Amino acid sequence: MDPALRSSLQRTVRGTVTTRPTELNRLGRDASHVHGAPGAVVRPIDAEDVAELVGWARQHRMALVPRGAGTSLDGESVALGGAVVVDLSGWKGIGDVGPGDRSVRVGPGVVNRALHTALEPAGLFFPPNPGSWETCTIGGNLGTNASGPRSFRYGPTRHWVSEVEAVLGTGEKVRLGRRVEKRSMGPDLLQLFIGSEGTLGIATEVTLRLAPRPARRTGLALPLPVDASLGRLARALARAPGTGLSAVEYLDEFSAEGLVVGRGARWATGSPLLLLEVEGEDTAESAVHIVRVSAALRASGILTEPTVIEEADRLWSLRGENGRVLDERLGPHVRDDVAVPFDRLDELVAAVRTIALDEEVRVYLFGHLGEGNLHPNYAVDPASRTADRIRAALYAAVLRLGGTISAEHGVGRVKREFLGHELGTTAVRLLRAVKDACDPDGILNPGKLYPSGPPTTGGSSPSPSGGGGGPGRPASPSGAPSRPERSAPKRGRRARSR
Amino acid sequence: MDPALRSSLQRTVRGTVTTRPTELNRLGRDASHVHGAPGAVVRPIDAEDVAELVGWARQHRMALVPRGAGTSLDGESVALGGAVVVDLSGWKGIGDVGPGDRSVRVGPGVVNRALHTALEPAGLFFPPNPGSWETCTIGGNLGTNASGPRSFRYGPTRHWVSEVEAVLGTGEKVRLGRRVEKRSMGPDLLQLFIGSEGTLGIATEVTLRLAPRPARRTGLALPLPVDASLGRLARALARAPGTGLSAVEYLDEFSAEGLVVGRGARWATGSPLLLLEVEGEDTAESAVHIVRVSAALRASGILTEPTVIEEADRLWSLRGENGRVLDERLGPHVRDDVAVPFDRLDELVAAVRTIALDEEVRVYLFGHLGEGNLHPNYAVDPASRTADRIRAALYAAVLRLGGTISAEHGVGRVKREFLGHELGTTAVRLLRAVKDACDPDGILNPGKLYPSGPPTTGGSSPSPSGGGGGPGRPASPSGAPSRPERSAPKRGRRARSR
Repeated sequence: MDPALRSSLQRTVRGTVTTRPTELNRLGRDASHVHGAPGAVVRPIDAEDVAELVGWARQHRMALVPRGAGTSLDGESVALGGAVVVDLSGWKGIGDVGPGDRSVRVGPGVVNRALHTALEPAGLFFPPNPGSWETCTIGGNLGTNASGPRSFRYGPTRHWVSEVEAVLGTGEKVRLGRRVEKRSMGPDLLQLFIGSEGTLGIATEVTLRLAPRPARRTGLALPLPVDASLGRLARALARAPGTGLSAVEYLDEFSAEGLVVGRGARWATGSPLLLLEVEGEDTAESAVHIVRVSAALRASGILTEPTVIEEADRLWSLRGENGRVLDERLGPHVRDDVAVPFDRLDELVAAVRTIALDEEVRVYLFGHLGEGNLHPNYAVDPASRTADRIRAALYAAVLRLGGTISAEHGVGRVKREFLGHELGTTAVRLLRAVKDACDPDGILNPGKLYPSGPPTTGGSSPSPSGGGGGPGRPASPSGAPSRPERSAPKRGRRARSR
Repeated sequence: MDPALRSSLQRTVRGTVTTRPTELNRLGRDASHVHGAPGAVVRPIDAEDVAELVGWARQHRMALVPRGAGTSLDGESVALGGAVVVDLSGWKGIGDVGPGDRSVRVGPGVVNRALHTALEPAGLFFPPNPGSWETCTIGGNLGTNASGPRSFRYGPTRHWVSEVEAVLGTGEKVRLGRRVEKRSMGPDLLQLFIGSEGTLGIATEVTLRLAPRPARRTGLALPLPVDASLGRLARALARAPGTGLSAVEYLDEFSAEGLVVGRGARWATGSPLLLLEVEGEDTAESAVHIVRVSAALRASGILTEPTVIEEADRLWSLRGENGRVLDERLGPHVRDDVAVPFDRLDELVAAVRTIALDEEVRVYLFGHLGEGNLHPNYAVDPASRTADRIRAALYAAVLRLGGTISAEHGVGRVKREFLGHELGTTAVRLLRAVKDACDPDGILNPGKLYPSGPPTTGGSSPSPSGGGGGPGRPASPSGAPSRPERSAPKRGRRARSR
């Protein structure tokens, strides 16, 4: 970063400013293959500081990229082409859950697992538990509407946020939502903010809704026939009442094998696995729930009885290791995330495998079966042309099946050129209108989420918005179902004095 | 309506057009005191017809007001000043719930109760059950993000919609959302549409999420001490795990008396009532749930044991009669709807009663206690100055307590001038930007939801937007906490050819 610019930045914020190359390199990555080249890292100390920072960025046409733990999987939190990283990982405040309701105020940098621990004494918990829950931050969870196994019972992050305090790209401080259990005050702007990947504003405080914590969580494991119909299975479990099921996870035989080898697990290798989590208040209740799960499985045509394995902590640590085990085995690879309606699940599985055969690449398939959400992991360099072809073919298949190309990871850099294929031209136009209202200069996390092509504000986007042609290049849309984007109406750049 | 205009309307749509005075009068009302004077009633036959209708409205600068059963409580569905009613109550199609997932496609005119009945064979149900569930439509439920007793367990309508097909105010057909269990494709535009009260677009098809139907619903009733702390009670029940509680309803002694007299109920009159609904799969499970509810009540300091009364149908028919009983006793009166955090509930109750004393008006208080959502019903003409003062004082108190002035009824005509008091200037600006992007000519349900004052599109709003000065006049904002609205930036009217 230009020294004069750096010193004006340092004069503007009360927090620290860093341009150390090791720091820039470390914070220029997330869990994807997208690499950025931040110009600086700023650690603002409060909302006022964030507002000053935004003012500076507007004045100097510099891009800002808010960041938590950098666990995003599609480049969401990567600062491209000299953008300034706004590191909020130090904002770890957790408010009291004393005499209030089922809610807690937290800083955006609070780690999901730390929150879980802090809430235990109150008998409450924050349900969303993404795969990265041990390190990911609440701010990041909001940014991508992250989810995880327990969304089977509890729904996504979107359902568990009641209020966000944020600084918009205009510099305005705003409170969206309200710390109440229900509200009908028109269109829900808070829900625009969740999943916006730092492109509309920077969250400075978050109020979360909480659920009563069940006394017991029992893990179940069940080897499946290789040819089991996942669609019938998912539907049977999702529609069974009174099971206390909080997670319905699937691992294909290749993914399961990596977890099982040398770990003394009781199930046979060579089979796909169904992992279940059942909640209950005592052993008797858990036993009843498990009987109902068994009945639902039998009704679906899966005749084997489930085996109760270790308590859920062990189950989830196994399941949670899945990503690491694959990383060790495969190195960098395509980690995707799609969902289809239950009645199209078997077709999805077939399409995933056909693509692997066509490209002569091995695929590991696992995910949140109970919600029709699978993670196809292709053993191929995610920055390669083969990976581009695989993604294009996968998304085309998913859209043909009426599904979504991102169930819980977000859009980021990797999927942005496909956004319009799923949403359609009109919805993309509306998203751009929202972006324009919140961030008229396009300073917030440019090059993410919204497709390239016609710029939001008629050519006023700052230099980083084009992104790099380097390793962070977007996935090629070639091969995907083609719908031309209609140009947004060109407008003159708005005056800054609003 | 001008005969030439009427005949051009008739030529435009394939559905029927009516201008019979009795019909206009009947469809010029909802369940509030707001009365309108529609210019015509149109019953389009499909989405294409709706798109043609919108094109006609834009061309002739005529306002359109989509309408289901007209059960809205704040004038949401009332056509003001000559607007055209778009009657969708005939769109009663219910799709198959066969081999698919936990979802169903319906027309916006399907009645909530009819859907409930249709889904029974599949063992599924649509959880939101507003007080008017026997007559209200799904389209109306979406329009106001309606809720009802079971949102205690299941959340509001907002959580139970996966996809909407709509025609925007621009005439564009759009699909928002997706028929999948989870999705992270950026900001959730679908959630903008839900609660938008017909001001952004007209829904032509809705895909709902469904829940497994529990086998048993048990109703419990419990007389409460007059001075019971509602805050402690709500918090204890909301935070207790494993209770199967699906509804936590409160009726003060005056509301309860009206239901009890002459009905042979087993509880004593003169007490406030707590009505609970507990879900379970069999009698044993229900018994366990009830034991846990009793324990939670004891822990809250309410020592009496709950009495199991009749099955839930009878309980809910009693609870459902509450509105009718009050209407019979009081005639037209103020039916309000507010929510606060649990730790402010006792202060809310005190404020509600103080306002009644100050205005020398009787108040009946009941509602969804388990979510901090109460309905203060003041025995006063809702169109009177006293009613205006009561509303202003109530909303000021609610906002001081960090609550919301609409938990489940919506904004409509009655609360629109208060929207900015709760949301703040910036959020209102964002809402207007969304409105502008969806309905640039302001033809959809003008005079609702958004505060009057600076028009959305710089003076281009059609004639009905000002609304009548007659019985539909907006509640006066005087006495409420005053925050000036900042003007939206003036822009020239956009070209119609987009």
